[in-house]
Amino acid sequence: MADAMPLGEKRRRLEDEVDTAYFEKYDSAFVHEEMLRDGVRCKAYADAIAACQAITGGGVVIEVGAGSGILSCLCAKAGARKVYAVEASAPTAKLCREVVRANKCEDVVEVLEMRLEDVELPEGVRVDAIVSEWMGYFLFYESMLDSVIFARDRWLKPGGCLLPSRAKLFLQPFSDARWRDLRAKHLSDVCGIDVSPLAARLAAEEASEPAIQGIESEHLFGEPRQILDMDLATVSLAEFSSSIQLPMAIWERPRLVHSSSNGQSMPVHGFAGWFEVTFNPPAPPAWSLAQLLGAPSLAARFAAPSTGPSEAPSEAHVVPRRVVLSTAPGQPRTCWHQTLFYLPSGALEVSSSDQLEAEVSLNRPAENRRWLSVSIRWTHVTPAGAKVSKPAVSWLLRSYAEAATRAPPLPVPRLRGTSRAACYGGAC
Amino acid sequence: MADAMPLGEKRRRLEDEVDTAYFEKYDSAFVHEEMLRDGVRCKAYADAIAACQAITGGGVVIEVGAGSGILSCLCAKAGARKVYAVEASAPTAKLCREVVRANKCEDVVEVLEMRLEDVELPEGVRVDAIVSEWMGYFLFYESMLDSVIFARDRWLKPGGCLLPSRAKLFLQPFSDARWRDLRAKHLSDVCGIDVSPLAARLAAEEASEPAIQGIESEHLFGEPRQILDMDLATVSLAEFSSSIQLPMAIWERPRLVHSSSNGQSMPVHGFAGWFEVTFNPPAPPAWSLAQLLGAPSLAARFAAPSTGPSEAPSEAHVVPRRVVLSTAPGQPRTCWHQTLFYLPSGALEVSSSDQLEAEVSLNRPAENRRWLSVSIRWTHVTPAGAKVSKPAVSWLLRSYAEAATRAPPLPVPRLRGTSRAACYGGAC
Repeated sequence: MADAMPLGEKRRRLEDEVDTAYFEKYDSAFVHEEMLRDGVRCKAYADAIAACQAITGGGVVIEVGAGSGILSCLCAKAGARKVYAVEASAPTAKLCREVVRANKCEDVVEVLEMRLEDVELPEGVRVDAIVSEWMGYFLFYESMLDSVIFARDRWLKPGGCLLPSRAKLFLQPFSDARWRDLRAKHLSDVCGIDVSPLAARLAAEEASEPAIQGIESEHLFGEPRQILDMDLATVSLAEFSSSIQLPMAIWERPRLVHSSSNGQSMPVHGFAGWFEVTFNPPAPPAWSLAQLLGAPSLAARFAAPSTGPSEAPSEAHVVPRRVVLSTAPGQPRTCWHQTLFYLPSGALEVSSSDQLEAEVSLNRPAENRRWLSVSIRWTHVTPAGAKVSKPAVSWLLRSYAEAATRAPPLPVPRLRGTSRAACYGGAC
Repeated sequence: MADAMPLGEKRRRLEDEVDTAYFEKYDSAFVHEEMLRDGVRCKAYADAIAACQAITGGGVVIEVGAGSGILSCLCAKAGARKVYAVEASAPTAKLCREVVRANKCEDVVEVLEMRLEDVELPEGVRVDAIVSEWMGYFLFYESMLDSVIFARDRWLKPGGCLLPSRAKLFLQPFSDARWRDLRAKHLSDVCGIDVSPLAARLAAEEASEPAIQGIESEHLFGEPRQILDMDLATVSLAEFSSSIQLPMAIWERPRLVHSSSNGQSMPVHGFAGWFEVTFNPPAPPAWSLAQLLGAPSLAARFAAPSTGPSEAPSEAHVVPRRVVLSTAPGQPRTCWHQTLFYLPSGALEVSSSDQLEAEVSLNRPAENRRWLSVSIRWTHVTPAGAKVSKPAVSWLLRSYAEAATRAPPLPVPRLRGTSRAACYGGAC
């Protein structure tokens, strides 16, 4: 049936609805509290702002998605001459103004209650720095990066400062064996009844969407693989309009990181993902510059699969003008936790003489561009060279509330090894 | 504008939609796992079934809302001749059948995949026992009790056994002072920025709906007050069709349960509610029988305000044929936690020479009869007799997911006193 509304208009309306729902999420005071309770996050930004001469030297700053206004106030207190705090959620913009007043920053910080894309700065104004905490689960969920790029292209002075300035994505296989064993043991005897048929459904449900959850290093296999290294100064909006293919991550002789079972076959239950952002990085290394020249797509900018963060996070708060905010397992926990992609096909048995390969692609679903579809295709290579490939599987990150709260609400967290045992057994 | 659909039909359709959404909730394997991980819950039912002669003596049983089928299997293993396991969610009924087979109970347990109200038992069949785990948050959320009453009126033999057979509701004021102090201290200095304006919004949001959350005994004032004592054998469906007025709970000389600050003024931040169900109770005491005679409404059946559970839960697993499942603070934690009703008007300062009164009424909202609206009206009486009454405030329990996960998702639980301090400070 013909529809009177032109397609462009329909798309715009859908996008408006998506944005309204997105901004309303931040109406919740609890969401802001959660972010403010994340000391790792707050301290990384505070340190980065204090170390940014483009701000401390009396610069003009725009903050994309100011929220409670804490970063804008930090900029003002650090010496910024002017800060435009852009916040589209009305109750949040009100909160932001109150916080600005409470910190006596109203002479410097101007709260602009609107979408970033609707902002009109005074004629000719260019900014020295753009500050934004735009990162979502698995980095890209929520797609707030678009607005940062928009602001950069429109207002940032050549050579201006971006906080953060660089983002990396990591992937690493994990085993859920210890938790599954505990679960299986419990389900086989709940007050004398065998409820084992539930186990397969639990596994299927686990694989049905990404889990936002902390994972301990001891459950990880092999080494973390960097699958993206993105320079915020040069990344383009066009690169996010469709699918992003990330380069293959390869684990040779994968082993559990902390395990005495080397040489044995171990079950891989999925891939854990996380990100790291860098503030005020030094000049990019030679390989990256070479890749940037003439590279039309984001995929071409990736580091070759390497092991782990290229800079040790432990140095981060020592070296001036270098701050790293890492959401890696083993690092202090953040509100992003880690993102777990459980394999729907069940465990993949890998021995330490095998090789495991994974290819990742990211998509923004048409029905909601703030969601994130993550597809992973993995291949298992035996020492004899036999390859077993699986068709790509897609997981959809789509609901903040669902994603953040998927783990059973009982007190003992999942994937926490020994501590979980206390919750099971005994009671019956 | 006139509507072609008759009102009765509209209401029926709405109820069907509500039920479909309700049953779909139980499609989730995680929901079943959560219930099976609650050892207090499972053991109470296992003990009650094992102690119920109407079941162990070869009786016929109907289970209302069988879920994973564990209770039906327990009945079969305990000696039931026949168990009708009624389960309306299709995937759950399938799971239930698998569990029944895994426990070799298929000769005894028949899974009926339908709404309880649609069940047709063979002509003339009456049951010796009805088993159901129908309790929701603050006892009544989800309204599954209706189906239990329906089953009782239709199929239970005179003098037949109901598991559970009795339910009580309790209320007690609480103070959130320690947590609020920690929060205020943190918000006043997040990396050097004062984010205090967020505090009032957080308090408002806390009061906007009931919180499903554990509370420690040390945060409670005075004594628990029993506000409902319901005999499942006699309670009628009609009593739930509209508002239920519960009798006034009175705290004289309210004091924090575990506090050295006796005599000082203390802030009441809200009321904590929980329930207790009893299985196989002895004959009701004389006062209750007297109240039952000629009492047309549920309100008339309540115990006069009394202190705490009328039977000590510690006796529960010692006395044969008496099992108590308590969700009280201080008892082992259950999947129901406690239900906290935060006062929207801010703290109520009460000294230990004052008296505090609260009146509660329960409502089933027309738009969704499985939701629960809880209204509380409280009065503060000073020693001189001055009364300060507040208009009744209503809280709506409406979303399982929201209700269960309202607390910030960071690791340290709220309302846990000292342990929460670890999450705050230090990081910045």
